[in-house]
Amino acid sequence: MIESVKNRRSIRKYKQQDIAPDLLNDLLATASRVSTIGNMQVYSVIVTKDAEMKAKLAPAHFNQPMVKEAPVVLTICADFNRFSKWCEFRNAQPGYANFLSFMNAATDALLFTQNFCTLAEEAGLGICYLGTVIYNPQQIIETLKLPKLVFPVATITVGYPDESPELVDRLPLEAIVHEESYVDYTRETIDKLYAYKESLPENAKFIAENNKETLAQVFTDVRYTRKDNEYMSENFFKTLKQQGFID
Amino acid sequence: MIESVKNRRSIRKYKQQDIAPDLLNDLLATASRVSTIGNMQVYSVIVTKDAEMKAKLAPAHFNQPMVKEAPVVLTICADFNRFSKWCEFRNAQPGYANFLSFMNAATDALLFTQNFCTLAEEAGLGICYLGTVIYNPQQIIETLKLPKLVFPVATITVGYPDESPELVDRLPLEAIVHEESYVDYTRETIDKLYAYKESLPENAKFIAENNKETLAQVFTDVRYTRKDNEYMSENFFKTLKQQGFID
Repeated sequence: MIESVKNRRSIRKYKQQDIAPDLLNDLLATASRVSTIGNMQVYSVIVTKDAEMKAKLAPAHFNQPMVKEAPVVLTICADFNRFSKWCEFRNAQPGYANFLSFMNAATDALLFTQNFCTLAEEAGLGICYLGTVIYNPQQIIETLKLPKLVFPVATITVGYPDESPELVDRLPLEAIVHEESYVDYTRETIDKLYAYKESLPENAKFIAENNKETLAQVFTDVRYTRKDNEYMSENFFKTLKQQGFID
Repeated sequence: MIESVKNRRSIRKYKQQDIAPDLLNDLLATASRVSTIGNMQVYSVIVTKDAEMKAKLAPAHFNQPMVKEAPVVLTICADFNRFSKWCEFRNAQPGYANFLSFMNAATDALLFTQNFCTLAEEAGLGICYLGTVIYNPQQIIETLKLPKLVFPVATITVGYPDESPELVDRLPLEAIVHEESYVDYTRETIDKLYAYKESLPENAKFIAENNKETLAQVFTDVRYTRKDNEYMSENFFKTLKQQGFID
């Protein structure tokens, strides 16, 4: 088993050390060996190294400090623009201005992203995945000048680690795996599967800091609220429309 | 660089050899080290080994033979059901019946999928990614008994390789990477970036077999048509509604 996968940690503090361009290009090229739908490779990667550009991206990521501090920020996009242009220049009528094509392209982009992360970590780099990328896609689209049929779906910060965080807990394997068909969760199985997570001192601290009764309430009331999710869902559809993936 | 990533091929023919349950579990458990949004791990994996279940899944994948022939088929799902159940049992009000939450969960599922694929290939297994999973999600949901807030986003077949296919072409790195901001493609850049792909004898054969003038037409007129994409987009939204991710 690949040791760097087994022991991976998200890295949020980076050394003041650039990534050699050849290394970055090798990692990106090797990551592009990932399988994509119909080998269409309907994704693109925007590489941000310039301090001014990082400063412009930062607010879209709620000013998380690693956006400005990491030597490299990658924004990986679902991209049916390049493929459609190719079709147009080859006397073919592209039919990719629809939601299914967005999902196909987002899938390509996300599989590429994880392939890159694994290679980068194995090469001694640290990465942090920023889920914020789909919260404020319009700001990112504007900053990176993304045309129609291009939509950002993943952002990662990359650099040499300047911290050694503890390994973070995961649910036991039986929580995520179902044999042959889905077996729904009862109160009893939920109690058992979440027992370890709920027993951790850092999570007790998390509950206290947020003045909540349970860890779940920290998620529903503070971190991932219905109100925010509903607002961002609407915004996501607006942006899909703006980028030409839905009518 | 990880050699198995550099030299990866999709594998569609498998030996009649089972995968040891301990190996499969180790691969799944290690793959679950992948980063997920807020460490919520909002994905599930359905493991299909039973011949009857494979036969039921096959039509949803247009009866591609590897579904019945591979020892293991994995269907990886966006899953906010488990997390929402946990919230309900902990006096917290889940707010995840919306599209943004679907995207978050689909992202978790796809990053997990690629992490698993890399580990499996490095362990000597072969995999094939089936894009068909999102073409007929309803059939898969019914077969695997997926409840609301669970949606299949990736299917892979897994087994020991019984073929050694050639390495498949990829676009040059400059086709997919943009420095600082997106530079749109001109006819000249498209000509250059697609020249190698278009020069390949297997692609000339592909054009002839399909009675087309250009390779792009094989994609637009035969493999990924506007009509199919539009039909499947509508179906995707219906299924998102059925599974509770949109109103």
